[in-house]
Amino acid sequence: MKDYEDLPPIVIKSAKGIYLYDENGKQYVDAVSSWWVNLFGHSNERISTAIAEQAFQMEHVIFANFTHEPAILLAEKLVEITPAGLSKVFFADNGSAAVEVALKMSFQYHQQKNKPKKKRFLALTDAYHGETLGALSVGGVGLYNEIFQPLLLDTVRAHGPDCYRCPFNQSPNSCETPCISFIEEALKKHHEEITAIIIEPLIQAAAGMKMYPPLYLKKVKELCISYDVHLIADEIAVGFGRTGTMFACEQAEITPDFMCLSKGLTGGYLPLSAVVTTEEIYDAFYDDYKSMKAFLHSHSYTGNPIACRAALEVLRIFEEENYIKKIERKSESMKRIATNVFRGHPHIGEYRQIGMVGALELVLDNETRESFPSEDRVGYKIFQIALDKGLLIRPLGNVLYFMPPYVITEAEIEKMIMTTNEAINEYFQCTKVVK
Amino acid sequence: MKDYEDLPPIVIKSAKGIYLYDENGKQYVDAVSSWWVNLFGHSNERISTAIAEQAFQMEHVIFANFTHEPAILLAEKLVEITPAGLSKVFFADNGSAAVEVALKMSFQYHQQKNKPKKKRFLALTDAYHGETLGALSVGGVGLYNEIFQPLLLDTVRAHGPDCYRCPFNQSPNSCETPCISFIEEALKKHHEEITAIIIEPLIQAAAGMKMYPPLYLKKVKELCISYDVHLIADEIAVGFGRTGTMFACEQAEITPDFMCLSKGLTGGYLPLSAVVTTEEIYDAFYDDYKSMKAFLHSHSYTGNPIACRAALEVLRIFEEENYIKKIERKSESMKRIATNVFRGHPHIGEYRQIGMVGALELVLDNETRESFPSEDRVGYKIFQIALDKGLLIRPLGNVLYFMPPYVITEAEIEKMIMTTNEAINEYFQCTKVVK
Repeated sequence: MKDYEDLPPIVIKSAKGIYLYDENGKQYVDAVSSWWVNLFGHSNERISTAIAEQAFQMEHVIFANFTHEPAILLAEKLVEITPAGLSKVFFADNGSAAVEVALKMSFQYHQQKNKPKKKRFLALTDAYHGETLGALSVGGVGLYNEIFQPLLLDTVRAHGPDCYRCPFNQSPNSCETPCISFIEEALKKHHEEITAIIIEPLIQAAAGMKMYPPLYLKKVKELCISYDVHLIADEIAVGFGRTGTMFACEQAEITPDFMCLSKGLTGGYLPLSAVVTTEEIYDAFYDDYKSMKAFLHSHSYTGNPIACRAALEVLRIFEEENYIKKIERKSESMKRIATNVFRGHPHIGEYRQIGMVGALELVLDNETRESFPSEDRVGYKIFQIALDKGLLIRPLGNVLYFMPPYVITEAEIEKMIMTTNEAINEYFQCTKVVK
Repeated sequence: MKDYEDLPPIVIKSAKGIYLYDENGKQYVDAVSSWWVNLFGHSNERISTAIAEQAFQMEHVIFANFTHEPAILLAEKLVEITPAGLSKVFFADNGSAAVEVALKMSFQYHQQKNKPKKKRFLALTDAYHGETLGALSVGGVGLYNEIFQPLLLDTVRAHGPDCYRCPFNQSPNSCETPCISFIEEALKKHHEEITAIIIEPLIQAAAGMKMYPPLYLKKVKELCISYDVHLIADEIAVGFGRTGTMFACEQAEITPDFMCLSKGLTGGYLPLSAVVTTEEIYDAFYDDYKSMKAFLHSHSYTGNPIACRAALEVLRIFEEENYIKKIERKSESMKRIATNVFRGHPHIGEYRQIGMVGALELVLDNETRESFPSEDRVGYKIFQIALDKGLLIRPLGNVLYFMPPYVITEAEIEKMIMTTNEAINEYFQCTKVVK
């Protein structure tokens, strides 16, 4: 809040496509899709119309003993588009809740399968899965969870992949993912007490947009089978086309035991989430009331009809306008332009990209890969300069990233990258002058 | 899910006012306001219009460094209508998240105030505060949290008030709340390690609509001051007029340290929540970035503009149509009619009511107050009979309850109560015949 003394919050009055407009009429490119959520542009005509229609017809109804068409159709559609073997949908209303549902369901499954020792989770260093206490317990970013340690579960932690500063000195394009050994060791030691591994497929986002190859994910799945542990794929950020395929898991050709979905699910309109799981998990809870095997977890707005209608419209746009193909072309342009623009910059250690997510690793020295001290807030300062230029990109320590809505044009992609570059150069010129 | 073999979920196609309509055109009275959320009727013209407008103008925007008019106006309004001393608003997007925010904020406050021992919470038996792991940890209903015990925090538990089966043999209309002693004892013993008490003001809902007098709440607040412990008032269910006053805390004339709001906040339209707190709490987090004292907790759709617009419209309806007065009159009618209808019934142990919440305690014997065995599922079976009659009331074990939308008319209140009575009588007649 104190930062706002120097940089007061910007009051947005209207938004259209990739653009936000503040109360003074200033335009900003929303290059982070308002944090992963927006897919087809702000104030999208089709989604807004669907929402308005639903609001006048039936805004919400209790989701116990009652249901409605938008939820039924959405569940069917999610089963259709998620990896084969995922056939049951549990609705919730935000991403953290989806993670908590998956954690609880995996735990209860093993309890009911007579494996009472399985009560811990395995997660990666620098993972982010949300900020309610269960979700925060599997997270590994100190900024969010360090102070809350006394309130958190005792999670088994394995070193995650770190391709830019690979401890095995390999390249992600050619390696056999030797870093999988960290998970393997943890499983060897703790598998009897572990119920599930939770992972962000392909991109560890809050970690600093750390990207890793599909082979790693494939091996995680194999280890889960060998060691009788569930795999929870947290596709909340990376799902719905963001990595170039509808879901990131597709690139590793795996089916997780649980897939958590939210953010882009409603195209950036409204909170909604879902956990998609298998017949095997479902069956373990299916019994007479008196057996008390049911999985209980409810939120007042679980399966909200307005949000479900938005999600249905999003999935129709994907299909009817063939957006996976469009994303392929747009992300190729983004990679080509960005690689050209950022190549050779003394303070850009790496430009990395998967699908429609691009990230810049800022370094003190390109050779040694040494980071800027965090108290310099380099990323935050460049973010401020970019804002001034009407571009909203975001910092994560020394990493800057963009992941624009899919409706962005090639010309707008180019402008976004050029403006990012200008902001970076301006910052480093000024620090030189001040020194 | 197996219950659905006999009672398939009812597919609702449209809704208007207090009525739901299924795919066959059958009408149901939504006498539980779709679980506390609906205030001014389904598909309310004013709220739907506000939502549609906002969806076309600016559906959502990142809530870090950016803000918007609906959030600003809503925060100002919440400060205005909540008890004096509550002046800061933290937005989240569902009720559980609001509870987790309050728990985390209270804990971090005491850590930063150099009270590291304060890391436990105090809650009542049979409490319900949501189902993410933090919220579930302070909950006390075995149905929801027993199987998850190994994942939950070690909460200090005090016996809550139980006015129908008072262990002190008192009446809630005249007692001096001797049952406060359970909290006092817990505090005496554990206050040094307790950061906050969390409580459902006036009605412990999932406990079976247990209602207790304002004096109890007043004494809880006094104890919190004496023992240097925060008070978290979970008004998610009871807020926004449900108990007859805008907030239940008003009846005890107290200001809690944190007030959690959700459900009715958007009039039953969309998930949104807020934690309202004091200047003193706020100040403990206000410092330079480098001090790392900031409170971090974010959800993608925190402060969603569409949901905020719905909430603003709800608060305008409250004011412009003077709904607190209307609720007073309607709840008086409800009490008068219900008391007449249910009086003397051999299996109705008590009809109790606060504001627009009515509950029936079904008993085997009116004299001994003995309960039906839970496996009889008496409440559930009467709920089924009522559904058949086009009335949606809900069971909680042996308790049946209704809390209709505030737009219900006196004639409709009467019909709701008569139908409830018919359903109860039908059930007991049939059990006699079967026996």
